[in-house]
Amino acid sequence: MSYPETMRIAVDAMGGDFAPEQIVAGSLLAADELDADLSLVGRPAAIRPYVDERARLNGRIEIVAATDVIAMDESPRAAVRGRDDSSVARAIAMVAEGTAKAVVSAGNSGAFMALATTRLGRIPGVKRPAITVMMPNPDGGHRLLLDAGANADCRPEHLRDFGLMGSIYAEHALEMQNPRVSLLSIGHEKGKGNELTKAAHELLAQTGLNFIGNVEGGDIFTDSCDVVVCDGFTGNVVLKTSEGVGSAIAHQIREVVSESNSFSEAEPLFQAALETVTRRFDYSEYGGALLLGVNGVSIVGHGCSDANAMRNAIRFAFRAARSDLVEHISAAFAEHASNDA
Amino acid sequence: MSYPETMRIAVDAMGGDFAPEQIVAGSLLAADELDADLSLVGRPAAIRPYVDERARLNGRIEIVAATDVIAMDESPRAAVRGRDDSSVARAIAMVAEGTAKAVVSAGNSGAFMALATTRLGRIPGVKRPAITVMMPNPDGGHRLLLDAGANADCRPEHLRDFGLMGSIYAEHALEMQNPRVSLLSIGHEKGKGNELTKAAHELLAQTGLNFIGNVEGGDIFTDSCDVVVCDGFTGNVVLKTSEGVGSAIAHQIREVVSESNSFSEAEPLFQAALETVTRRFDYSEYGGALLLGVNGVSIVGHGCSDANAMRNAIRFAFRAARSDLVEHISAAFAEHASNDA
Repeated sequence: MSYPETMRIAVDAMGGDFAPEQIVAGSLLAADELDADLSLVGRPAAIRPYVDERARLNGRIEIVAATDVIAMDESPRAAVRGRDDSSVARAIAMVAEGTAKAVVSAGNSGAFMALATTRLGRIPGVKRPAITVMMPNPDGGHRLLLDAGANADCRPEHLRDFGLMGSIYAEHALEMQNPRVSLLSIGHEKGKGNELTKAAHELLAQTGLNFIGNVEGGDIFTDSCDVVVCDGFTGNVVLKTSEGVGSAIAHQIREVVSESNSFSEAEPLFQAALETVTRRFDYSEYGGALLLGVNGVSIVGHGCSDANAMRNAIRFAFRAARSDLVEHISAAFAEHASNDA
Repeated sequence: MSYPETMRIAVDAMGGDFAPEQIVAGSLLAADELDADLSLVGRPAAIRPYVDERARLNGRIEIVAATDVIAMDESPRAAVRGRDDSSVARAIAMVAEGTAKAVVSAGNSGAFMALATTRLGRIPGVKRPAITVMMPNPDGGHRLLLDAGANADCRPEHLRDFGLMGSIYAEHALEMQNPRVSLLSIGHEKGKGNELTKAAHELLAQTGLNFIGNVEGGDIFTDSCDVVVCDGFTGNVVLKTSEGVGSAIAHQIREVVSESNSFSEAEPLFQAALETVTRRFDYSEYGGALLLGVNGVSIVGHGCSDANAMRNAIRFAFRAARSDLVEHISAAFAEHASNDA
């Protein structure tokens, strides 16, 4: 198949605990499914062994040379300066230059966020890009949380902007009708929360969004909302807490089952059930974190991404880019700014 | 058995979804185990049917009349004014007067907190009392989180005070040696977090506590810390999020098991395992929330407390009161204030 304008996605082939092998493997899986060409950015000699003949022949995969690699534990600040030949910087540059429409990395997330923000720039009118994650939604469908950690300190207008961006994303990239935007707080009533959420509640109520008001931490895992808005400190704590509870529960169930003789025959069944449930709560199934508000589709996956996680992250990037997400946000913020003026 | 000074604990017999029956039943269970006398405060005609002869005869239980009841959905503000004959106000008054050493309620928690703070007053030097909860600790032992919701907006010195109070509580009431005090943040390094946690980190490091630095949301469920300090907004979000994830996972496991034929024989085993694990993560097993920093031991349990939850809350109150918790906090804050001067 060939289209006049096939989308190109730049993949940081060197980023992540299992790079380049798993990153390349995931990219090949994604290339088989999606109508997109992929650029694997990194050291050609390291990448080449994992790119099979078939992928090379059908021309969906190219290797783009970058000699430097930013390690997982390097400080984001060090990564931004004078490391233009790193795989992640080159991959982001492809989006900045217009060669690629989206960039995906499973590498150092701080470095990725800093580079994506500085190299791509913010969409005019967006003051703070936000990390947007898809939360495990056991009942199917999607639920977005933002900001999941880009902005530890926020002002009320930042939270309003997160609501706008999250709603646009849900509507255009995830094809939700009239997404229900909510504000994470303590107590459902309007007057409940801290100074930040009380002020943000007022602003969100004036946006014309389908703002359904406050939700509490537990509501994130029910079907009561589609987009959950919070500051980046709270969002990151929510993310880490839910991962922690999930693995503590899984660990406990395994322990209870393995300790008791009465469970011994059923143990394989338990393991299977637990794996199914763990997968439903596994963030790698949900495609990584999107940096919403920058001028380009930028997705950073878990550092421990395997091929499947990488495939999902690239799918996620494809969906976002195909929906003209950046253009929709630009239009909304231009209108928003003119309303403010 | 009879001691020269038996401790008396005041119980709001009318507070909670299953009051008075379950509250009274839990009180009788606690009275059987603890060296404490209990005052059941509320409408005598409603309480009396559930107090059995044996309990009445050994003299551990008395009924204290209060005609008014504050409903679960009343606003805390309404509850504080002109409702002195409510069961919760009378129970708190017994501590204020020195008749009882601790008060326990499973009623309207906002009303309880407001009444306990105004009627008992703060311990000199404590600016903000904090709600302290015992977090599910699957590996055994205890882990405290404070503030779990009393103060939505905090200053750095409030977080320092929470660290001091939490450490004293862990040491004296829970008999932990040199409790590890930690600060909930995003990132383990000292410089990570929001403005509040960065400043609080500095203050906590100067206290002389066994301050181990920042922890993340997931660490709350591991054996890496004993006391976790945060503002009341974040603490409440953590509490609600972890409850939400827990019930979503339990629900999912039940669904996976019931959907598949291959599990049908093992289903009773699954249910048993899940119940064991759910119990380990069940907050009612952990005795309710302590309002730390007020002049008296004040504990509010879940509104849905049954007899077992109530028994645990009373045990928890007994332990805190027996350890002279209030006196230890008073002494520490007096010293602290003189160091500041």
